[in-house]
Amino acid sequence: MLEVPVEISRYNFPTPIDFGVGARRAIAPALKAQSLSRPLIVTDQILAGLAPVTGIVELLTEAGFSVGLFDGVVGNPVKSQVEAGVAAYHAHGADSIVAIGGGAPVDVAKVVALMAHHPGDLFDYEDGKPDALTAEGKIPYLVAVPTTAGTGSEVGRSSVVSDDQTHVKKIIFSPRILPAHVFADPELLVGLPAGITAATGLDALTHLLEAYVAKGFHPMCDGIALEGVRLVALSLEKCVKFAKEGTGPTPEHLAVRSAMLNASIMGAVAFQKGLGVVHSCAHALSTVCDLHHGLANGVMVPYGMAFNRSAAPERFETLASLSEVGGVDFIDWIDSLREAVGVPKNLRELGVSEDHLDTLVSHGMADPCHQLNPRAVSEADMRELFVQAIG
Amino acid sequence: MLEVPVEISRYNFPTPIDFGVGARRAIAPALKAQSLSRPLIVTDQILAGLAPVTGIVELLTEAGFSVGLFDGVVGNPVKSQVEAGVAAYHAHGADSIVAIGGGAPVDVAKVVALMAHHPGDLFDYEDGKPDALTAEGKIPYLVAVPTTAGTGSEVGRSSVVSDDQTHVKKIIFSPRILPAHVFADPELLVGLPAGITAATGLDALTHLLEAYVAKGFHPMCDGIALEGVRLVALSLEKCVKFAKEGTGPTPEHLAVRSAMLNASIMGAVAFQKGLGVVHSCAHALSTVCDLHHGLANGVMVPYGMAFNRSAAPERFETLASLSEVGGVDFIDWIDSLREAVGVPKNLRELGVSEDHLDTLVSHGMADPCHQLNPRAVSEADMRELFVQAIG
Repeated sequence: MLEVPVEISRYNFPTPIDFGVGARRAIAPALKAQSLSRPLIVTDQILAGLAPVTGIVELLTEAGFSVGLFDGVVGNPVKSQVEAGVAAYHAHGADSIVAIGGGAPVDVAKVVALMAHHPGDLFDYEDGKPDALTAEGKIPYLVAVPTTAGTGSEVGRSSVVSDDQTHVKKIIFSPRILPAHVFADPELLVGLPAGITAATGLDALTHLLEAYVAKGFHPMCDGIALEGVRLVALSLEKCVKFAKEGTGPTPEHLAVRSAMLNASIMGAVAFQKGLGVVHSCAHALSTVCDLHHGLANGVMVPYGMAFNRSAAPERFETLASLSEVGGVDFIDWIDSLREAVGVPKNLRELGVSEDHLDTLVSHGMADPCHQLNPRAVSEADMRELFVQAIG
Repeated sequence: MLEVPVEISRYNFPTPIDFGVGARRAIAPALKAQSLSRPLIVTDQILAGLAPVTGIVELLTEAGFSVGLFDGVVGNPVKSQVEAGVAAYHAHGADSIVAIGGGAPVDVAKVVALMAHHPGDLFDYEDGKPDALTAEGKIPYLVAVPTTAGTGSEVGRSSVVSDDQTHVKKIIFSPRILPAHVFADPELLVGLPAGITAATGLDALTHLLEAYVAKGFHPMCDGIALEGVRLVALSLEKCVKFAKEGTGPTPEHLAVRSAMLNASIMGAVAFQKGLGVVHSCAHALSTVCDLHHGLANGVMVPYGMAFNRSAAPERFETLASLSEVGGVDFIDWIDSLREAVGVPKNLRELGVSEDHLDTLVSHGMADPCHQLNPRAVSEADMRELFVQAIG
């Protein structure tokens, strides 16, 4: 079923995506075609020393580019990182940005691109803020190179950045911060540790499932979501197994990493339709307990989907009918997958306790994602979900 | 599973689509929002006197628009119709175009929009022609209102128009002739006769199936195609039954018409990935024997898919695994559906005979669609497909 994409394919949902083993080699020609010469790499501190980044720096340098590097992304993005990135952009005299990494560096890169030539403060551009400034000025050419399969930020139009002091997350949304070109190279994911593979993979699964059952009418997103779930079912467990075993770029490893990279992109496209209560819980968990977003989704997703089932029974039947799911109850399937990839069953194992409950519920209710959940979420429902998940 | 879309939803793959019962009422506000006042309706001769067109003319007139009508589309589009449409556009002093109908009027409207302000001859813009002119000038605001569920031309970037004398089909392709806004109103399809419902419905199914098994890598198109096949399985037979019985806009009738209207849109989006040998045969049958495109696809599709199965066995298994298909062999399922909706098993019933064989094979081989077929098509293969289909 799964194949190794040995030829680079290009498709355009919703932006040009060069997909396949070695797709990173197409970055330099793409920048040249735009007459660019001084890219700034935006990445995170850990990744900066690892092969995905050093390899791309080498490819670009060999191709004659003057490459700048900003590796000031650490943990969940905060505004000061964006400001430092903008300063690095100007210090390098950059004319373009190459974002390399998971959701955090890509989200930072998108708003570094925005703020490079836009006035005011980043949060003046916050989505939904009265009198918000809009992204109408010049935005440098932005390329994104995912190194995880989860967030799909590389095909998204928003960036989530927290206030350094309050930790409150702000969403910056504009079609103009969608990367101009994505290079999706499964080889860059071969060295991803098992824990990150699992957490980001369940993040992708959460996007797919929440989109599929979300309120609203979008049959194309439904189809993309179902196909994404199929890909997750075929590949996530194997990705984690290969990561644990330290398997190199074997054909099967590349095939399953490719499948997850696609599932991740498809999740982010599908959730144009909407997300749901799992994301509201995960956002609260990141703000209150600084949990990794994918990990928070991974723990919450079986509880959230069990809560949703009565509101969309036919959709859960369709999910269960996917031959890759194997004829088991769908909520049980999610829970088995969570266990198989080593993500905790309970939030308590991650340091969350009843002491956090009130704050989690209040942040969760304030988060807009659950408004598109197929089943309405009361404060009591939200509390019960957290109680179950704390365990 | 299927619901009546009583609220109008808007989605954006690949252009804004207002979808739902009564969506036609949103056309006037959309034109007003663009400060337009003189739309030209482009439709076909038969439809011009029927409710879908007269109703929209009335809605627009009541809203204060000065409405022009061009109903010079008859049968498969030819260039002289486009020229007459452009003349009608200028005679009316039009500032916008509202295409209403199946594939033929929508295809004509797209190139009337192109030629309204572009120099030269229509065929100077033929896709792939050396030194072809390009669509770089002004293009009037174009709205499309499908009244069949098959071609999906309303969400496509191409227009197929034949030479009046030679009957040779020419493809005009440009992202700029994609309609700026689609109003997809299932109520407009309630009166569609059974024969057209069946032929256009199998056209949509052919797009979905050829895209799904086509060569190339596009997991999102795959997901859209599978979901479209599911919708066809749930709805086409019922649409034809309701059409035969003359059923009015009952909730179930609207629900199945909605499902097919979506399946049609999804087919046209999915076939960005590619089509295959069935379309090459159908194009030959239209050129040589003037067969309706959807009908030609409907007869050919079981033969073409049986030919393809060995090249994509897993894909056919996935298709057969859709719970809506009901656990039968997938080629048998296509053939039963064809029979149930009253489309002939053999081309002979449509006046095609061995006398046409050489010409059909030569036109079929010259058609580019089969180049993306999952199984390579030799001249002998093409002949054998036509021999089988003639019966």
